[in-house]
Amino acid sequence: MLLSPTGLAVIGASREKQKVGHVIFKNLLKSKVKAYPVNNKARSVLGAKCYKSIIELKGLVSHAVIAVPAKFVPSVIEECGAAKIKYAIIISAGFSETGNKKLEEETNQIAKNHGIRILGPNVLGIIKTGSYNASFFEGEVTKGNISFISQSGALGVGILDYLISKNIGLNNFISVGNMSDLTITDCLKEAITDEKTSCVMIYAESLKDGREFMKTCKESKKPIIILKAGVTNEGAKASSTHTGSLAGSNEIYTAALKQCGAIRVQSLKELLNTAITYDKYGRLGNKALVITNAGGPGILITDALINNKIKMPELNKKVIDKLNKELTGVAWSKSNPLDLVGDAMADRYAKALDAIKKEDFYDYVILILTPQAMTEPLETIKEAIKFHKETGKPVIACLIGGDKVKSAKEHAIKNGLITYSDVNDLVNSIKNLD
Amino acid sequence: MLLSPTGLAVIGASREKQKVGHVIFKNLLKSKVKAYPVNNKARSVLGAKCYKSIIELKGLVSHAVIAVPAKFVPSVIEECGAAKIKYAIIISAGFSETGNKKLEEETNQIAKNHGIRILGPNVLGIIKTGSYNASFFEGEVTKGNISFISQSGALGVGILDYLISKNIGLNNFISVGNMSDLTITDCLKEAITDEKTSCVMIYAESLKDGREFMKTCKESKKPIIILKAGVTNEGAKASSTHTGSLAGSNEIYTAALKQCGAIRVQSLKELLNTAITYDKYGRLGNKALVITNAGGPGILITDALINNKIKMPELNKKVIDKLNKELTGVAWSKSNPLDLVGDAMADRYAKALDAIKKEDFYDYVILILTPQAMTEPLETIKEAIKFHKETGKPVIACLIGGDKVKSAKEHAIKNGLITYSDVNDLVNSIKNLD
Repeated sequence: MLLSPTGLAVIGASREKQKVGHVIFKNLLKSKVKAYPVNNKARSVLGAKCYKSIIELKGLVSHAVIAVPAKFVPSVIEECGAAKIKYAIIISAGFSETGNKKLEEETNQIAKNHGIRILGPNVLGIIKTGSYNASFFEGEVTKGNISFISQSGALGVGILDYLISKNIGLNNFISVGNMSDLTITDCLKEAITDEKTSCVMIYAESLKDGREFMKTCKESKKPIIILKAGVTNEGAKASSTHTGSLAGSNEIYTAALKQCGAIRVQSLKELLNTAITYDKYGRLGNKALVITNAGGPGILITDALINNKIKMPELNKKVIDKLNKELTGVAWSKSNPLDLVGDAMADRYAKALDAIKKEDFYDYVILILTPQAMTEPLETIKEAIKFHKETGKPVIACLIGGDKVKSAKEHAIKNGLITYSDVNDLVNSIKNLD
Repeated sequence: MLLSPTGLAVIGASREKQKVGHVIFKNLLKSKVKAYPVNNKARSVLGAKCYKSIIELKGLVSHAVIAVPAKFVPSVIEECGAAKIKYAIIISAGFSETGNKKLEEETNQIAKNHGIRILGPNVLGIIKTGSYNASFFEGEVTKGNISFISQSGALGVGILDYLISKNIGLNNFISVGNMSDLTITDCLKEAITDEKTSCVMIYAESLKDGREFMKTCKESKKPIIILKAGVTNEGAKASSTHTGSLAGSNEIYTAALKQCGAIRVQSLKELLNTAITYDKYGRLGNKALVITNAGGPGILITDALINNKIKMPELNKKVIDKLNKELTGVAWSKSNPLDLVGDAMADRYAKALDAIKKEDFYDYVILILTPQAMTEPLETIKEAIKFHKETGKPVIACLIGGDKVKSAKEHAIKNGLITYSDVNDLVNSIKNLD
């Protein structure tokens, strides 16, 4: 299996800190899978004994990570063949993405002759959190359950860095690069099979094996969330100069992705937020209950929910009666959005949450807050976290503001409560999870 | 003029710190317009001598800010009449928004009899940066040129707090509340007339005087950017329980807003970002040049630009020749998006910016960056700022990442360079500014 190496060799492991081969080996030194540096000009890299050729490692490693200049890659693959390597992860760039299709085909043919599967070339690498980082991404990706397949390594870096900063975990990250052999679909199959994977998010420019991809999506019990780039002619053209593959017609993709049940999203943020929300809460259902201290955002989210066919069930009599009693003198809305009005402190949110705790007329709570004079953002977020822990019911928050809601946001992130600053971003993250 | 008081009286100015009347007077003590506390039970508030009635201030003040319980408002307005007040800003809630239409009408009638114009009731107040803060918003709004009219005070608070945290300035902020007398249109007219105003952003649930609003938009040379809430039946219903006004049919609004040349946006974020971008750069034109170190985001933004009818002109021969010379050995894209590839350091961005400096085949630059191994986010942002200062050409940045791009983002914010994390957010902020 691509994701389960028994040992890893880094061909082109370097002593020079700024070299990709150095960074990869440094990352692998911290891994749970044994890694070996291969470099015929150095005796050791980062304290580990260097091997002159991968052939010396025959039987010890299943995977080779290759970070030598493109022109040397075919001969390196030959050696991998002799070393009985199963997977070659070709980090090196300078193949079809720069017009050098011949070199890519040559490399591919040699690999084929030896039964070696290629990931790449032109990839960032693979990360399996809690096990190994066979990439040149520098940073500790948080352990989690989302798997992420990216056809753009550079975009991968940006997203990994973003996820770390938000304390959001991944299970696997796979950069597929030029897909000269292994495709997004191949990687998708492995990611789904991994039992720790909750859902898979994909950044794709082209799907080389559309039918197989569709079949995989259809059979998958785990959501496959996909951002397809290159939907305009101009975008497709930019794509072809990027990884050297053709993007295909958008109409075909639209029809195919719809038919196979993949969740297609329209932006990077939607890709991330949909995966994050599913990973936390699973399928949400489609009945939202909004609790707010501000009418305006309540209206905005009502528009966004209804426009996305999400239902907003009315409060039942029991809840209305209970809250009328609890909130004497408060001009609360008595409807959904449940508007607690501007002077609501955390205890009023707590009373509202308590009143709906045992009800099942809704599937999840959207908690909105703007920082007015009496508002207690941090304490309110704590009530939301407590409610979720007690009831298991999903809560998604929207905190509209800046410094006044900063500590509440930080507390939410630290405690895994999903929080947005914009009601439309929030709705875009849940609209595909009914 | 509503925005130009000659003196302000705060009726209901309180010694109790948590009271709205206390906060307003505290805010006004720092203002350049003379303010007086009116409270018949206290001798002084915050060191200022209290007046028993506004009648004592006759001739000294043009505006009264009223923060007494709703039931006392009609008699207070009577006194305002005797004091020859021109504008009453009624902060107090508990009128039509809570079903108490009669009290609102009564108040309105008394004001009318005395020739007093009412802002509100149920408002946050007015802020004119650099002059006065006649609201109960606690925080120092940065001085700037955007004017903001909000039908929701609570949303106003959230947005003001957000703008402060991003170092974005406002000229005027006006909360219109229930609009029992002065409407969004009335406030809009004043905001446009204010020569410091660059553009006006409006959060509206209902426009009571549609024709007049349209006329004002048509005649305005300054962009009027509007987020209309309550576009679904459900949203409109939530709106009517909020400020007590009917939202009207969305189809009518769509047609009317289009016809009068207002810029209609679809989310809070788009409202803010469009205004911020216009305020910084004015109308952008519709020819974008994208510079990136990552192919993936380059494709995503190409899709987004083309889908929004923004042009991406090709590089001319001069630029291609120059960059071919400057970037020997670099597999750069030679097209728009100008992909400098993954190992681009700040100097490569600088060379690209230099090559296009004197060209006019494009209107503005979109600079994209993901934090790869060699990337220098902060130094690259500094190059972008330098380019903008030297050439005057607009630059909008998209930094995709987390901690690795944090200091670059902070530097951008501090130096007024507009920066996004998501390419679609970026395009949504410029698509209406051609």
